[in-house]
Amino acid sequence: MTTLLHIDASPRGERSLSRRLSDRFVEAWRAHRPSDTVIARDVGRNPPPITTELWIGSVFTAEDERTDEQRDAIKVSDELIAELERADLIVLGTPMYNYGMPAALKAWFDNVIRIGKTFSFDLERGDYPLEPIMTGKTLVILSSRGEFGFGPGGVREDMNHLETHIRTCARYLGVEHTHLIAIDYQEFGDERHERSIEEAYAAVPQLVEQLQSSRRSTPATVTSGRG
Amino acid sequence: MTTLLHIDASPRGERSLSRRLSDRFVEAWRAHRPSDTVIARDVGRNPPPITTELWIGSVFTAEDERTDEQRDAIKVSDELIAELERADLIVLGTPMYNYGMPAALKAWFDNVIRIGKTFSFDLERGDYPLEPIMTGKTLVILSSRGEFGFGPGGVREDMNHLETHIRTCARYLGVEHTHLIAIDYQEFGDERHERSIEEAYAAVPQLVEQLQSSRRSTPATVTSGRG
Repeated sequence: MTTLLHIDASPRGERSLSRRLSDRFVEAWRAHRPSDTVIARDVGRNPPPITTELWIGSVFTAEDERTDEQRDAIKVSDELIAELERADLIVLGTPMYNYGMPAALKAWFDNVIRIGKTFSFDLERGDYPLEPIMTGKTLVILSSRGEFGFGPGGVREDMNHLETHIRTCARYLGVEHTHLIAIDYQEFGDERHERSIEEAYAAVPQLVEQLQSSRRSTPATVTSGRG
Repeated sequence: MTTLLHIDASPRGERSLSRRLSDRFVEAWRAHRPSDTVIARDVGRNPPPITTELWIGSVFTAEDERTDEQRDAIKVSDELIAELERADLIVLGTPMYNYGMPAALKAWFDNVIRIGKTFSFDLERGDYPLEPIMTGKTLVILSSRGEFGFGPGGVREDMNHLETHIRTCARYLGVEHTHLIAIDYQEFGDERHERSIEEAYAAVPQLVEQLQSSRRSTPATVTSGRG
């Protein structure tokens, strides 16, 4: 049994390409694993609150010493982290907004990356005092980008602050493996965009099969076949 | 006469190191230029609304065809862009949050990077259809970071998605020159942190002098002296 956390970060509904990708992923997953649990979290349409000074004060206060006001300030953070704790696989649909995460997705990360919950801090570790608390999660990023050339060696590689940033943050959520499927050229609306959509749509069921296959062979020895 | 746009992105008040830096910068500026205008925009304590599907629909609708609802949805964006248009120098105090911008600052960028206002889009330009509309602005980033080694060649260079991302976005606001002063080691609270604070505090008036000196010699020929 696998638990999926399905996050969408686009403020758009029907018109969102990243939503179409994440929906396809979850449908393809469920086609073979109908009894797996899917937790849906729509941060695009219901953004988590942006963290405040009260939030910061609360997370740095021992749990049994928090005031009611402090407890209230981190209620959403508690919920979001509880969802994350249950998840084996995070399926994240997100557009690239101004070369990075939409603010709503960053608000999600700012709520879930939390001392004592998702990471521990110990100066005895020297210059690298932070360590994730959770382990073994897989992250699938399903993205849509207006331009192109954001991959390694691409013409806009240096302007890509989306999945590079997500990967950096995801480590502190216990993510150990990350996969990316992206649609490009949205602003051009040309043949390259159509081809990019087709390729992404084709890649989704392939990735589902690959992940389900590796999960079937876990925790037993991984075989070279598809289990 | 120079107009400064002073933005703070920290949700903290007195305890914010990036606020202390930006306050010092503005004070040092005013000490020599008391009649320059300073526009203050506190996104940390009053985050702009996160952009919605209605916002997107509105900015892609011709101005004279927008409904009242659409006009309302971009009212804050209009205000923020008007502030930006007036500014020659953007003074941005921001902490590094989870290796990037606080969500509130990303919400500011998502509101101000807007078609027809801060950038134009033309497919006749080929593979690079976006161009900034404004020109000649200078950006000063005053930052505070919990860890260290985020600069070129540093041990956490690959984890820095803050000023790298800000620089990418700032181009579309008409920013042509960017300066960075950052305090490091905040989480360590050790001597290195104290030294980093001292160095940053010393760098602020130096940068103010450098910028005021180059402004004095603009638009006339730039001289090698301090004008």
